[in-house]
Amino acid sequence: MAPRVYLAGPDVFLRDPLAAAERKKQLCRAHGFEGVFPLDAELELGALEPRAAGLAISRANEALIGGCQLLIAQVTPFRGPSADVGTAFEMGFARALGLPVYAYTNVDTDFTTRTREFVHTIRARSDRIIEDQDGMEIENFGLADNLMLVGAVEHSGGTLVCFDAPADARFTGLEAFEACLRRAKRDF
Amino acid sequence: MAPRVYLAGPDVFLRDPLAAAERKKQLCRAHGFEGVFPLDAELELGALEPRAAGLAISRANEALIGGCQLLIAQVTPFRGPSADVGTAFEMGFARALGLPVYAYTNVDTDFTTRTREFVHTIRARSDRIIEDQDGMEIENFGLADNLMLVGAVEHSGGTLVCFDAPADARFTGLEAFEACLRRAKRDF
Repeated sequence: MAPRVYLAGPDVFLRDPLAAAERKKQLCRAHGFEGVFPLDAELELGALEPRAAGLAISRANEALIGGCQLLIAQVTPFRGPSADVGTAFEMGFARALGLPVYAYTNVDTDFTTRTREFVHTIRARSDRIIEDQDGMEIENFGLADNLMLVGAVEHSGGTLVCFDAPADARFTGLEAFEACLRRAKRDF
Repeated sequence: MAPRVYLAGPDVFLRDPLAAAERKKQLCRAHGFEGVFPLDAELELGALEPRAAGLAISRANEALIGGCQLLIAQVTPFRGPSADVGTAFEMGFARALGLPVYAYTNVDTDFTTRTREFVHTIRARSDRIIEDQDGMEIENFGLADNLMLVGAVEHSGGTLVCFDAPADARFTGLEAFEACLRRAKRDF
């Protein structure tokens, strides 16, 4: 049986998420994996109130991750300097289950640089530490995103691929995703 | 033995995180819990390069969560419409370990409203669906943040407390944190 890969990322927010899912699944098959997309659970959401629908999707996604052998997360910065929080949650979920966590970003800048560009004010708190206008420290470890995300990839035996996709392929470019698949194929 | 509570949140980025930790730990003790703060691991980081230090902190935090019986996350919006991604990761980690996940926010607005204020452009994709300038859907489930975060709290038996703290106590106000402790005390 092909190892099952949970396809975490903001791809679910694209205009045609099922087409995006199919592109990723085809690449998975080409590398000997079976791709599992967050929308794969067959949920009857039509009759549900919005809140109940959201909670049903959450429960379904947790179950889908539990049925996978690895996870590949798109951590391209999403509405702020960091990855989408739903993706971050799913990385933590997979990591605690012992799954190898792979990740890719289509914006190849480091987290500190992106955060400096995002905040209004930067003040030095000490020689080493900088903070924003709210007095909140700006992480400065030379990593691609928050240390919990990068650490999970590193400690789980996965790989983080950083790549600069064209602006119009920021959330859809698959070069770095495919690089993750190549690494995962070698590792499995 | 008092149940151990992992204190997730952007509190680690405050100017005096150890003082903030001590305030939370005192409230934990007053409610019959032992608070565990992300910086509690005694790490010798001085000799490490920044990247290695970041990865060591990640590993230590994962181990600290593994030694706890519940988690209380501060999900106050952090540099964008959502919670801090490190916190989101830790919620997912705790959830997969089967821990009850409690959460509080000091900004009591719903996620869709915050995201609408954050993005540059809002377009209707259909009757029900709105998207941002990048064509990415804006979640609209009437929840306080991304559905994976709210779902984890709900499904794990925890509670999400939404509260409007004064602006100068956005990341430090503890009323909602204490409300989580009261709920957890009742539940344990």
